[in-house]
Amino acid sequence: MSLPLPHHDGSPLYVSNDAPQLGETVTVRLRVPAGYGPLTAVRTRSNPDHEPVWTDAVRIGSGDGWDWWEAPVTVGNRRHGYRFVLVHEDGRVEWLNQSGLHRLETLDAEDFALVAHPAPPAWLREAVMYQIFPDRFARSAQADEHPAPEWAIPAAWNEPVDPVLPGRSQQFYGGDLPGIVEHLDHLVSLGVNLVYLTPVFPARSNHRYDAASFDSIDPLLGGDDAYIRLIEECHARGIRVIGDLTSNHSGDRHEWFQEALGSPGAATETFYYFTDESNTDYEKWLGTPTLPKFNWASAALRERFITADDSVVAKWLKPPYSIDGWRIDVANMTGRLGDIDLNAEVRQLLRETMLRVAPDAVLFAESTNDATSDLQGDGWHGAMTYPSFTRPLWGWLGAPTREPYLTAEGEQRTEPWFFGQPIGGIPSYTAAEFAGAVTRFTAGIPWRVRIANMQPLDTHDTGRFATHAAPGSVQVAVGLSMTLPGLPVVYAGDEFGLTGADGEVSRTPMPWSRQDDPLPAETLRTYQALVGLRRAHPVLGDGGMRWLHVDDETVVFVREGEDESVLVLATRGGANLVLAPGAVAGASSAERRYGDAALAVTHDGVALAADGPAFAAWALPGVAVPAASRGADRSEARA
Amino acid sequence: MSLPLPHHDGSPLYVSNDAPQLGETVTVRLRVPAGYGPLTAVRTRSNPDHEPVWTDAVRIGSGDGWDWWEAPVTVGNRRHGYRFVLVHEDGRVEWLNQSGLHRLETLDAEDFALVAHPAPPAWLREAVMYQIFPDRFARSAQADEHPAPEWAIPAAWNEPVDPVLPGRSQQFYGGDLPGIVEHLDHLVSLGVNLVYLTPVFPARSNHRYDAASFDSIDPLLGGDDAYIRLIEECHARGIRVIGDLTSNHSGDRHEWFQEALGSPGAATETFYYFTDESNTDYEKWLGTPTLPKFNWASAALRERFITADDSVVAKWLKPPYSIDGWRIDVANMTGRLGDIDLNAEVRQLLRETMLRVAPDAVLFAESTNDATSDLQGDGWHGAMTYPSFTRPLWGWLGAPTREPYLTAEGEQRTEPWFFGQPIGGIPSYTAAEFAGAVTRFTAGIPWRVRIANMQPLDTHDTGRFATHAAPGSVQVAVGLSMTLPGLPVVYAGDEFGLTGADGEVSRTPMPWSRQDDPLPAETLRTYQALVGLRRAHPVLGDGGMRWLHVDDETVVFVREGEDESVLVLATRGGANLVLAPGAVAGASSAERRYGDAALAVTHDGVALAADGPAFAAWALPGVAVPAASRGADRSEARA
Repeated sequence: MSLPLPHHDGSPLYVSNDAPQLGETVTVRLRVPAGYGPLTAVRTRSNPDHEPVWTDAVRIGSGDGWDWWEAPVTVGNRRHGYRFVLVHEDGRVEWLNQSGLHRLETLDAEDFALVAHPAPPAWLREAVMYQIFPDRFARSAQADEHPAPEWAIPAAWNEPVDPVLPGRSQQFYGGDLPGIVEHLDHLVSLGVNLVYLTPVFPARSNHRYDAASFDSIDPLLGGDDAYIRLIEECHARGIRVIGDLTSNHSGDRHEWFQEALGSPGAATETFYYFTDESNTDYEKWLGTPTLPKFNWASAALRERFITADDSVVAKWLKPPYSIDGWRIDVANMTGRLGDIDLNAEVRQLLRETMLRVAPDAVLFAESTNDATSDLQGDGWHGAMTYPSFTRPLWGWLGAPTREPYLTAEGEQRTEPWFFGQPIGGIPSYTAAEFAGAVTRFTAGIPWRVRIANMQPLDTHDTGRFATHAAPGSVQVAVGLSMTLPGLPVVYAGDEFGLTGADGEVSRTPMPWSRQDDPLPAETLRTYQALVGLRRAHPVLGDGGMRWLHVDDETVVFVREGEDESVLVLATRGGANLVLAPGAVAGASSAERRYGDAALAVTHDGVALAADGPAFAAWALPGVAVPAASRGADRSEARA
Repeated sequence: MSLPLPHHDGSPLYVSNDAPQLGETVTVRLRVPAGYGPLTAVRTRSNPDHEPVWTDAVRIGSGDGWDWWEAPVTVGNRRHGYRFVLVHEDGRVEWLNQSGLHRLETLDAEDFALVAHPAPPAWLREAVMYQIFPDRFARSAQADEHPAPEWAIPAAWNEPVDPVLPGRSQQFYGGDLPGIVEHLDHLVSLGVNLVYLTPVFPARSNHRYDAASFDSIDPLLGGDDAYIRLIEECHARGIRVIGDLTSNHSGDRHEWFQEALGSPGAATETFYYFTDESNTDYEKWLGTPTLPKFNWASAALRERFITADDSVVAKWLKPPYSIDGWRIDVANMTGRLGDIDLNAEVRQLLRETMLRVAPDAVLFAESTNDATSDLQGDGWHGAMTYPSFTRPLWGWLGAPTREPYLTAEGEQRTEPWFFGQPIGGIPSYTAAEFAGAVTRFTAGIPWRVRIANMQPLDTHDTGRFATHAAPGSVQVAVGLSMTLPGLPVVYAGDEFGLTGADGEVSRTPMPWSRQDDPLPAETLRTYQALVGLRRAHPVLGDGGMRWLHVDDETVVFVREGEDESVLVLATRGGANLVLAPGAVAGASSAERRYGDAALAVTHDGVALAADGPAFAAWALPGVAVPAASRGADRSEARA
């Protein structure tokens, strides 16, 4: 049984303002279990301009077995780090930061952090994302009006995905935007409210990441009109839509590139890195000739792509399109090339422009690995990133499958695919290691960005989690994606139980004709229930996060707010444990909202039991914060 | 008994070139204990332009119970991070980075890192620094020729230091540069070879951090001629000299500031942040009116201070002065103010200029807390910083003293001074925690910068370690400063056992008249021996670093090279331990070079025993690296 520990995070329960101005004083609160200590002092330590500043916390009262402390923190930099120090009567010192409680002094990088950039859209905290890969989602009757393009290898809807080149990028199922409109009822029934469409610009591949233009929607998808209609129909149903934009490169058939290729002096030649006199050699994305890399030192590119009134970024955010934001492809490499690093300039310029054009729009970065250094709040609201949730999840809930798959060259691989990492397959994590990895890869990210990071089980770039899932663990994985701090994402098809060993064969066409079969139908009900859980409890969007218990098989945590809290248990091998008395308040009035698990309040604490694999969630009353802390005069507390 | 673990660090034993060019391929080596695994693969993972790249390592041979692997790493960015991944036959995966061996995927920030900026001066690896605070070092007969200035409160050499304002900054002992020259034999006898002089420009305080000019040496110290002579006399003895420059601020009596103060339109007004129309209000260092903050957005300041041929930075590096580098005061705050952060530009400009003017000169930053983010190799060679050595050292080897001291305002403090951190005094660390803190605060710093970080027991800004040292532990502390990776620093007076509770009273005049008393004389002999140890073993400058054993009382580590190695034991409470067989090679021919401790090679391993506190060091033969690894053709190994 773990004893409760002092806690703070960036959620509204602990921070009076998560979008402060520079120079503003924010009140931060610390809760400490009653009887912990005794403490002779609690202080905050900030580091504005890289020079430590300390403030004293005052004890403002107690409630539900916790003492609450409060301190002022004046925001000195746009990313303002702070930590707590707890001084014990016996001389011991503890530091509290985003990676936990420490005896040793801690790193600036893991401080809690206030962000003095404009606030993200409020709706983001209530969003559940649904990712659609247009070629594979649904094909309307209209699609038959277009002949397949010359580059394409047409495929029937029920044909298997071909993971080998050229099929890998040219196999063409012909899904289109009207097809999506025809299935919006499905999205409504699933409960999602934010659609992320992978690219819809004209291109010469099924994935369309090799855009030939950013000025129109691919006619094969239905063109601009179909796009407008899709967005209108989504909006009418309370569903937002974001696009997918390649800021690292275009396709080699892009009009800008074609204008400059072989034409020294062309107006768009500065947009790319031509490396010879004749504009025929150029920098490419990972050496791929069809994907010439953008040169963000070009003022003309910045204007045309981002800052002009009719720029690519601006155009689609405005009527008549009015998309709700962008997911930026290969954001991690954007503006970076050897000695050059313009990434911060580009992401800040994107954000500034979007704030001007569509202040309520969202901006996500694709940054598939450790994205900490890019996620300090100056540009991206959040990231499509895998080490902070998706990979640890596979590690914990994956099964030791060895489903062979084919590489681009048609070579059969038996080492299970694991996000392209050549580490011998899927690593085997305990539940505690899962929690450890989540902590490690979120500790460097300000709370406000953390809760906007995408939390998919899988995407169009990965295998399908269900392929590799331990029996019965899909609901556990989905449950975690809906309840851990972050933006839940359903990759279209997961809700029907689709499988696929890697990021190619996972681009399976949606099984509309089989959706009433037992497995898809049951999986869909699980997704509906878990998306419903998220939607019904706003605290899952921005509530505080405390781990209450971790062991080899099980994690228990609580998301907390003043209005409500949600207790979560996730187990692979089964759970039979007792939370210390006081670890979580209000358990006696807990109401189970999902899953098969037992909760009983005894004099020993809160007993939880479940056969594994299981995911369960209970609604709890909100956290009682001593009233004094909400008084405006308190925010003036001694500095 | 801890078993040996796979190891790599940035030292020459493991890295073929620590100052590569961008685009160059470097060979990196991993050693793995024989029988560890079995391993099916060893790979490196780099992250150029924030996108992972992997290379395969090949096993090149074995020696002394270790298998050696080698892999090519092509330097993609100026700071090129890389890590190792070890794939076990049983499916386990381990990651090796600068914080150690991990089951879970690791953070980019803790990768090993190659630095593709020009190499630091080679002499730095052999340097032992000696810090001199001129007013308190020695007073020559010449000093009597100068009347004390009007701002000063003259003090006799044996008067106690007054820590209370105004004496704190105005008490004036009148030490001068000829005084230093008179005692250079002492420095030679001590064995130091790099003098760091705190400021010598004219000012209105005893510390002279409030420079009134950067163009001449304070006449009270002997002026320019005395400075030239000091440097010549030092150089003649093989001792280098560096200066101390305030890039964050000047004094308010500085000629530049006086020109602009109250004079809108003055040529130097852009040098500072005037905040009103009449140039009377301005930004200051921590609100101190006498220290107006520089505005590094000013092109004119950049030229006058750094880039011009006769700039401040350049002038003193050139003949007839020819100092060997700069320590930059308050480097951490330089160029930083709220929304502004020009720090990287300033430090890079400093470095570029110095490379042009005096390519063999060194550049240190004062950055008293976590300096990781500023120490990636683009500017500062190293830092005067406390969390990676000095503070952990005090935590481990400090005694729970409660020597009261006076604040600037004359208030008596009983909470022991601990680097200005209000955490209730000196924290109490075990030896293992000491090692943990060293690791935590060095894990984010490239090896080449780490070994140039200053490693003082104390400085003019801190209390004297001896004041707070557990009985008998000073030699342990000095020994660690000489043997852990980093630049050893002796703060003048420490070698005579001076004490002082905080950074004011520690500015004690040198006790020349008492240097032959038993305590100073014995302390000096300890310093001479330990400085001598460092100087006699170049491997202590740039050799590899492996922790072999840590427990509550003791740390054991080895510094390793191909030519020699040094085994080190440091204990507070005493040691009686056995290193696993194979943990360190050549122990049977170990030669004790310092300290009272026993080493015996038995069939169980290497037994070490000492009564605490103790510091001991043994010379060992160099590490046998399989010859194949040195072949040039190997550096072309498969990518």
